[in-house]
Amino acid sequence: MAPKILLMGKLYWASQDAEQLLGGIADVVCMESTSRAELFEDFSSGGRYSDVVGIYHEHISDRTVGDPDEEFINALPSSCKWFAHKGAGYDSVDVRAAKARGIGVSNTPGAVDEATATTAVFLLIATMRRFSQCEANLRAGGFNPPGVEASARDLSGKTIGILGMGEIGLQMANYIRPFGCILLYHNRKPNALAPSDVEYIADLYELLGKVDVLMVSIPLSDKTRGFIGEKEIRAMKKGSIIVNTARGPIIDEEAMIEALQDGHLGSVGLDVFVKEPEVDQRLRDMPHVTLLPHVGTENQDARRKMEVTALTNLKEFLLNGVGPNLVPECK
Amino acid sequence: MAPKILLMGKLYWASQDAEQLLGGIADVVCMESTSRAELFEDFSSGGRYSDVVGIYHEHISDRTVGDPDEEFINALPSSCKWFAHKGAGYDSVDVRAAKARGIGVSNTPGAVDEATATTAVFLLIATMRRFSQCEANLRAGGFNPPGVEASARDLSGKTIGILGMGEIGLQMANYIRPFGCILLYHNRKPNALAPSDVEYIADLYELLGKVDVLMVSIPLSDKTRGFIGEKEIRAMKKGSIIVNTARGPIIDEEAMIEALQDGHLGSVGLDVFVKEPEVDQRLRDMPHVTLLPHVGTENQDARRKMEVTALTNLKEFLLNGVGPNLVPECK
Repeated sequence: MAPKILLMGKLYWASQDAEQLLGGIADVVCMESTSRAELFEDFSSGGRYSDVVGIYHEHISDRTVGDPDEEFINALPSSCKWFAHKGAGYDSVDVRAAKARGIGVSNTPGAVDEATATTAVFLLIATMRRFSQCEANLRAGGFNPPGVEASARDLSGKTIGILGMGEIGLQMANYIRPFGCILLYHNRKPNALAPSDVEYIADLYELLGKVDVLMVSIPLSDKTRGFIGEKEIRAMKKGSIIVNTARGPIIDEEAMIEALQDGHLGSVGLDVFVKEPEVDQRLRDMPHVTLLPHVGTENQDARRKMEVTALTNLKEFLLNGVGPNLVPECK
Repeated sequence: MAPKILLMGKLYWASQDAEQLLGGIADVVCMESTSRAELFEDFSSGGRYSDVVGIYHEHISDRTVGDPDEEFINALPSSCKWFAHKGAGYDSVDVRAAKARGIGVSNTPGAVDEATATTAVFLLIATMRRFSQCEANLRAGGFNPPGVEASARDLSGKTIGILGMGEIGLQMANYIRPFGCILLYHNRKPNALAPSDVEYIADLYELLGKVDVLMVSIPLSDKTRGFIGEKEIRAMKKGSIIVNTARGPIIDEEAMIEALQDGHLGSVGLDVFVKEPEVDQRLRDMPHVTLLPHVGTENQDARRKMEVTALTNLKEFLLNGVGPNLVPECK
């Protein structure tokens, strides 16, 4: 009998791909547990998922069974050796607990580069040009709101700092290049793949002092929580802009809101927030910022790529014992 | 005494540039006429502007004195030989009447290429990803609206057709290229400056049948009014998108709204409308389209470039008898 794979989450766009990727090499079952307690029961000896060797995991399933935290990981049967998370960010998965049990955790990095970087470019243009305010005014029955000309700017010649030069940061640089911006980036260390026209700035505060727009593209971890705080925001020039398509808690939201209120920050473009799906009412009420409800990867092409990548990780694990996108903390 | 230049419209961003460009070679006066009748009186023999040799014209001044139509042009003093319009589009200026009187009309083409093409890219992303709907839902107190994943798409691999490969169309192609789209264009004739990866399609209907998104970038004239009508829209694929940053009347708005209502068009991204500043209520009420209040050039950098270009046209006219941006119909 083929090894069992548990789908925690639906395949919306890649069900045909799943048949091609796993057909014949795995017995794929869909999670039917309706609560965390029931799922743990199903994982335990004699339970219906007690013999799964790998899991396909989608964040949306968490609403029923909760995050794959330490308790969750420790409830997995000993047969389970691969946890294929669908998504680039995997801060909801307790990777340390998984590693301790010899479970490989994979994510789907490349699949969302385009979608996320495109969202970042959208937020860059929207905030530089004050387009959210323009559309809101039109939708409310008006036309062109006052003050746009003075606050809106062209992109050319402006300095854009990318915080975190991973694959998404690289894609952002590729998309922004033709607009004629000065491109800088900061990383823990230089990325050898960074193009020569994107200058590495070793000192974070030097970068912050130079940029007109800061594009946040680092993963959330204990080390990056609150990474952009009061001190960092105040190190930026008056009137500058922050775009965040990574994770909300990387920025101290309270400090950011204060800086928007006193005019130190000219605008922000956010796809992520500290307490999603809640959004601070003060942000909602600001006409000159652009706010998206964490839709950076929300389109059928990106989602299909994510599903296919997660399934491919499981396939490679089944065939070779390891999937291609094992997260660094598991290595 | 230096030749007199009349400023019809304020210099918002280029007053220092004006001093540098025209200081010493022109006597610059600001229009003080408060009605069309008073202006015509001022232009007539003995009037305070009866000896102007050139005019700096901004569309906003029209609210007081109206468009520079045939009557307006014929009211100009015989000394006036240059009409420097601030703007890329000059459909509000009766160029034929000006030419008949030997008055050169110039516009400010290059100055707005970046701003307009950037707006087009914004509308392309916004409509492909359904971002207006996402932000509206968030602003209204919700978070992620249903249905976005299914209707939103990545840009890569999609076919983008640029209608009108002038300077703005070229800039659009440059901005869109890194997103991995298939780029096509249609023009009356091939543009020798078009990059080799942007394919010329001689037949408009062939282009319309191929594209996922049509980007409209042709000037408004008697020949292009209603250029994209019922027949052209229905020649497009079901679910395709139109982005218009040129002029509203190029598209038959009624046919477009019907095609949006019956789902033939997936979305539209519009910066321009038929009866600005009025916007059809049916459009305002559609959540899945993106609507901007003609702000394609509305930012201080673009406006300064426009002001400087219009002033430079006047300077060159004064020094050499002709400005660099004489419109084609005047040649």
